[in-house]
Amino acid sequence: MDADTADPQQRRAAEWFTALRDRICRAFETVEAEHTGPLSDRAPGVFQRRTWDRPGGGGGEMALMHGRVFEKVGVNVSTVHGTFSPEFRGQIAGTEDSGDFWASGISLVAHMQSPHVPAVHMNTRMIATRRRWFGGGADLTPMRPDDDDTRHFHGALKAACDRHDPGYYPHFKAWCDDYFFLKHRDEPRGVGGIFFDTLDTGDWEADFAFVRDVGKSFLDAYLPVLKRHRDRPWTEEDRQFQLRRRGRYVEFNLLYDRGTTFGLKTGGNPDAILMSLPPMVSWP
Amino acid sequence: MDADTADPQQRRAAEWFTALRDRICRAFETVEAEHTGPLSDRAPGVFQRRTWDRPGGGGGEMALMHGRVFEKVGVNVSTVHGTFSPEFRGQIAGTEDSGDFWASGISLVAHMQSPHVPAVHMNTRMIATRRRWFGGGADLTPMRPDDDDTRHFHGALKAACDRHDPGYYPHFKAWCDDYFFLKHRDEPRGVGGIFFDTLDTGDWEADFAFVRDVGKSFLDAYLPVLKRHRDRPWTEEDRQFQLRRRGRYVEFNLLYDRGTTFGLKTGGNPDAILMSLPPMVSWP
Repeated sequence: MDADTADPQQRRAAEWFTALRDRICRAFETVEAEHTGPLSDRAPGVFQRRTWDRPGGGGGEMALMHGRVFEKVGVNVSTVHGTFSPEFRGQIAGTEDSGDFWASGISLVAHMQSPHVPAVHMNTRMIATRRRWFGGGADLTPMRPDDDDTRHFHGALKAACDRHDPGYYPHFKAWCDDYFFLKHRDEPRGVGGIFFDTLDTGDWEADFAFVRDVGKSFLDAYLPVLKRHRDRPWTEEDRQFQLRRRGRYVEFNLLYDRGTTFGLKTGGNPDAILMSLPPMVSWP
Repeated sequence: MDADTADPQQRRAAEWFTALRDRICRAFETVEAEHTGPLSDRAPGVFQRRTWDRPGGGGGEMALMHGRVFEKVGVNVSTVHGTFSPEFRGQIAGTEDSGDFWASGISLVAHMQSPHVPAVHMNTRMIATRRRWFGGGADLTPMRPDDDDTRHFHGALKAACDRHDPGYYPHFKAWCDDYFFLKHRDEPRGVGGIFFDTLDTGDWEADFAFVRDVGKSFLDAYLPVLKRHRDRPWTEEDRQFQLRRRGRYVEFNLLYDRGTTFGLKTGGNPDAILMSLPPMVSWP
């Protein structure tokens, strides 16, 4: 981890992603500890952390929990730096004259025991080449969409967006719908949320404040949805449906997700990158 | 299905792929019917067939069986034709002047109940643009490699190759090892077999005879391996290991397999293309 980098913006961003990781892991462990619904005869989950070094420079820390509410949740932070290989030069903003890059971020995917509780994804990151910008978002993947959940989840993210720019939510919601779409099946991955990339308004402090707000709003967006459904029993049929829907998640991540395919092609840590994949999946 | 096409080579190829499908399905159903090992208290599997039409022209037939030996096996035949969109023109041999294409083939993937019995894949196809050629191969994916199985499987394919050209086996074996490789994990998908593409020696009859021989040799290569292990009991630990290894199969097919990604991007039938994915998989 290079949180001790000399650049103050980079240092502050990396520290924030780590602090957000700690906050989210604590909240999720509390959900595990307090659980009284289905599977509460099992021991509550606790995050296991593992650091890794990136051969090219930097590294990260994976936090992985297998629990009784969270069947599998990974929360990864990483801060890496290096030089893009010639094939990636020019494909990324600010690399026309130099392939040097620095990137720091947090990435979270939760797959739940209960088929009634949506899976969720959140990611925010800062990239620095000759330019610097933020990217990220959060989106919800219920097995069967529920209007109240969708409304609540979007509402919390919209509130975070609106505190910074009234144009953000409509723009980033549409971007999310466009991005998390399985073209080969002509269906969305879930019910969306927000997605943004290359965010650089020229005011780094304002952009960083927005990214922090997205991170802080994530728990407000997700926990009430989780709590609405966690105590509801499910059937074996619900479970089989969940396992099939998870197949779509895998298809999206391996066929389309830029972070996944880019990471795997640039020598990223496959265990960290593929921590997003569901613990159990079926293609019957 | 366009087996009644006016071109005699195309008609003969399409008819062969369908006849091979029938032969393999019969052999696999016999394995199901005769089974006396683990899970033999269950009903033997029988193939269910479903035809589909390709909006652009042609179609296919999926044959899918869920059995007590074969947890999931798909055997698809298809004969399609159309015109490549401009983005694919020129990427494929013989499409420089015209995007017209015709393709017919058989594709098989079997995922087994027993973690001791390897998964297997076989595919042969004929493509016609302004040029025409064959492609295909067969490869074995054990959960834990076994030298005797590997030797037998390769031996049967080598015998088929050697009947046509002594250079085929070393060439097509190396091609297979190169193709079925997970770069992001630096590991092979299985223990290989043969893989070939753009086979056009100038003697279509000889090439077609070779492709038929590969298809006929497939059962000789695989059934003895299956029979060696099918009666051996397995533990829950073996099963969990199998489910994890199947994750690698999914990663390969969705990240690297050209047939899969090409098919999905060109409006192929996702259910037929993704029939290759395992019935149950874990990424713990």
